[in-house]
Amino acid sequence: MNQKTQGSTPKIRHALTIKREEDFAQWYQQVISEGEMAEESGVRGCMVIKPWGYGIWERIQKIMDARIKDAGVDNCYFPLFIPLSYFSKEADHVDGFAKEMAVVTHHRLIADGKGGLIPDPEAKLEEPLIVRPTSETVIGAAMARWVQSWRDLPLMVNQWANVVRWEMRTRMFLRTSEFLWQEGHTAHADRDDAMTETLRALEMYRDFAENVLAMPVIAGEKPENERFPGAVATYSIEAMMQDGKALQAGTSHYLGTGFAEAAGIRYQDKEGQQALAHTTSWGVSTRMIGGVIMTHGDDDGLRVPPAIAPHQIIILPMLREDEGDEALLAYCEEIRRALIGQQALGEPVRVLLDKRPGKATQKRWAWVKKGAPIILEIGGRDAAGGMVSVLRRDQIWREDAKTNFVAQSREDFIAAAAATLEDIQRSLHAQATERRDANITRGLTTLAQVAEFFDDKNRYPGWVELNWARPTGAALEKVVEQLKALKLTIRNTAMDAAPAEGTCPFTGEPAVERIYVARSY
Amino acid sequence: MNQKTQGSTPKIRHALTIKREEDFAQWYQQVISEGEMAEESGVRGCMVIKPWGYGIWERIQKIMDARIKDAGVDNCYFPLFIPLSYFSKEADHVDGFAKEMAVVTHHRLIADGKGGLIPDPEAKLEEPLIVRPTSETVIGAAMARWVQSWRDLPLMVNQWANVVRWEMRTRMFLRTSEFLWQEGHTAHADRDDAMTETLRALEMYRDFAENVLAMPVIAGEKPENERFPGAVATYSIEAMMQDGKALQAGTSHYLGTGFAEAAGIRYQDKEGQQALAHTTSWGVSTRMIGGVIMTHGDDDGLRVPPAIAPHQIIILPMLREDEGDEALLAYCEEIRRALIGQQALGEPVRVLLDKRPGKATQKRWAWVKKGAPIILEIGGRDAAGGMVSVLRRDQIWREDAKTNFVAQSREDFIAAAAATLEDIQRSLHAQATERRDANITRGLTTLAQVAEFFDDKNRYPGWVELNWARPTGAALEKVVEQLKALKLTIRNTAMDAAPAEGTCPFTGEPAVERIYVARSY
Repeated sequence: MNQKTQGSTPKIRHALTIKREEDFAQWYQQVISEGEMAEESGVRGCMVIKPWGYGIWERIQKIMDARIKDAGVDNCYFPLFIPLSYFSKEADHVDGFAKEMAVVTHHRLIADGKGGLIPDPEAKLEEPLIVRPTSETVIGAAMARWVQSWRDLPLMVNQWANVVRWEMRTRMFLRTSEFLWQEGHTAHADRDDAMTETLRALEMYRDFAENVLAMPVIAGEKPENERFPGAVATYSIEAMMQDGKALQAGTSHYLGTGFAEAAGIRYQDKEGQQALAHTTSWGVSTRMIGGVIMTHGDDDGLRVPPAIAPHQIIILPMLREDEGDEALLAYCEEIRRALIGQQALGEPVRVLLDKRPGKATQKRWAWVKKGAPIILEIGGRDAAGGMVSVLRRDQIWREDAKTNFVAQSREDFIAAAAATLEDIQRSLHAQATERRDANITRGLTTLAQVAEFFDDKNRYPGWVELNWARPTGAALEKVVEQLKALKLTIRNTAMDAAPAEGTCPFTGEPAVERIYVARSY
Repeated sequence: MNQKTQGSTPKIRHALTIKREEDFAQWYQQVISEGEMAEESGVRGCMVIKPWGYGIWERIQKIMDARIKDAGVDNCYFPLFIPLSYFSKEADHVDGFAKEMAVVTHHRLIADGKGGLIPDPEAKLEEPLIVRPTSETVIGAAMARWVQSWRDLPLMVNQWANVVRWEMRTRMFLRTSEFLWQEGHTAHADRDDAMTETLRALEMYRDFAENVLAMPVIAGEKPENERFPGAVATYSIEAMMQDGKALQAGTSHYLGTGFAEAAGIRYQDKEGQQALAHTTSWGVSTRMIGGVIMTHGDDDGLRVPPAIAPHQIIILPMLREDEGDEALLAYCEEIRRALIGQQALGEPVRVLLDKRPGKATQKRWAWVKKGAPIILEIGGRDAAGGMVSVLRRDQIWREDAKTNFVAQSREDFIAAAAATLEDIQRSLHAQATERRDANITRGLTTLAQVAEFFDDKNRYPGWVELNWARPTGAALEKVVEQLKALKLTIRNTAMDAAPAEGTCPFTGEPAVERIYVARSY
């Protein structure tokens, strides 16, 4: 955990025992456990989200929720349970994604006569209930009740909730049986209005990812085969992780009138005619936290962008359990008060004065692994001299492999604190963008080139941008199979993509658009 | 919906068709449906919480959450599902309250060959999972992992979550199979520290109920028979509804070392010895919203205390769909901007400019039924003259039975708006406190007097304060049975109760404390 000089070559002693380059998947698990983000719960596929991880989710919720409300969307709450018949009605829908679901069949436990408990056979439900994998169907049913006339449109609701999709292979934050998310559902009078809302949500997610999570993303349309079942068009934001894989970090769907027809969302238009509403849905989840970890984490743990850090500045007094502690704590408290009066990234600065018992160096490394943006270490001598010792989490090592503490007067530190936090936010985004851009390869024109590219032993191959002819139906299926053999998927076509050029590597036809192809989570 | 003069006696035409005095239970349902708070979901015992109802819950969450965090409690998230074995381990616990639970037995659906879906027999879980009725057991298991030494104490966590208790008879907000709540769970080194936390949470709830919900409550200790199963002491806040019944609106439990023993929450103390932690738990739920309705609602619908109103001031432009609308809307927008710059009750004023299509009077009555604290109606003539027409929801009728709109210059209204909101908050609290205090009867000394009192045909009998000897065990059971025969329960002993006097009406022994006895929800 400390820097050490080996002979003449300074060698950094990182806080984690596993390096990203060695084993990215194990590194990811270690960041989560050492950063006290989450842990296994003892319930298959479900995690306990610990205070630091949940604090990050609360920051995400707070900022996203304000943006959702600003768009005129109302929050509601719909039931956890969905009657089985709702799914039977939508068998197509179910075929697409949702057969692996938690099924409630009984409503009572009784003693089994052997000291244990069993589901009471007398309390079997007439109709099983499904724990919601999404609230699409119940919200559709509610919209059908709520929408009567054009005056009721647009109807825009959102829900923050837990959902369950039974997963065989789980990974914390990325794929868990239970996860937390928001799902927006809107109904509109016509296609234009619905499409505008679909793209508004997409842009909200893009901007949020870039400016709040400091995570560069490509916002674009998914290919036909990756559409949400029943959707007319599906859009996503795609982020590149440090292992070069793509992570879909949010989706927005234009659903046409198909869902309105299934749910019966009809309205009387201004001419008195009955018409079907056009609907949309859009969502992001705790998966975003997995994206933040794999975008910003380093070999010392997580680095949390200041905008979503539960605490942005940690003040660590080096307590000695003697009579000097009182003056030291008073000095730290003065600094804390001065800092919470500042604004950074449009909000009051969030500061923690960590007075818990324990060694200061242990506490320092715990905060490094959690990724707090700035750590202030303050000893008795600092307090006497009006100084602080500052560690920026994004500039943690000096060239000589020592930790990069910078001594500053407290006045200088306080005066610059907000700007420093904003600089860390910018710097994390710039680093991630640079890495992303450096790892997108263009100019491949044949499938053989693509195969060769991804066959390279380089562990960080990144994405390939291809021009293609946008085949559909059976022709698209063939493309999907060819890519699948290479463990590749089509991510999306960027909203701001350059015009297509050349011929399609799959069909040989003239290309009509550009797509990103990558390995993915 | 409009006032009307019948002969010489002005008669108010209330917005609801059911009066509180006629049928309180039906009135309650009508407030919820006409106020667009919530509705039946189609799933037994589960409700859809609509934007106005959910907006009130979000206000409750926001303010309560800040108080919980200020107390040093960290938010976490624990899994929705709890393995059956966790309950078998705690059979005593289960006997107390938790046999009616939703049981998940399968993790997949398959087609039944007849166009429907059924739980896949191949996907039966080895161990059924219970949908959490509370997270007590999983949080206990986590605490056992997290607590090692005295340095880890106190450990204080909170969770905002949905929980499920299968209820046979449900009533919206008051008793639903699924409800939303927060559950705080804390572990401490000794009894004193745990009891201090138990009472801190109780006081937090009391203050919140009084000053945020404007709902007067009695904070006190529940009798032995009403303790949470396994608790050493249970405290509650009890509010009087307008039908005189008591509503338990929040609880705080000191659990001693029993739960720590069951879960294995042990720590090494400063002397190096292993010791059991002392734990607490405390919670409030969406039930509070039912309390707000039954405390503040009147025959025109809900009256929402400004502190928890999603919108505090509604601006209703009287649009005529002509060329005058533009100037009218501009005028309304200026007023909105001036208002959102004000602070009331410590936060920026929340204002909605309601531009939706529809008749202004219909919209007015919709907002009256929802209980928005202040409604501004503004017509073209008002705009031209710099005026507004103001309706305070707590002063809605004039003596002549006309709606009590008051014409004011916009400057005067804006200057006084924050103070007006604060006055409404105070006024609702004062009305409820006066009614509560007028409906507590003291001085009854025999069980016969109690029986006679509650036998009265008066529909609003309120509560009775009795002096009693605090019997325990079999003697207490007898008291509970005697009261049950009268449909009565013991609510609590107030923290600030006067000293006991006289003899116990149940046992004839000298009284040792005062209790409240009431019918209850």
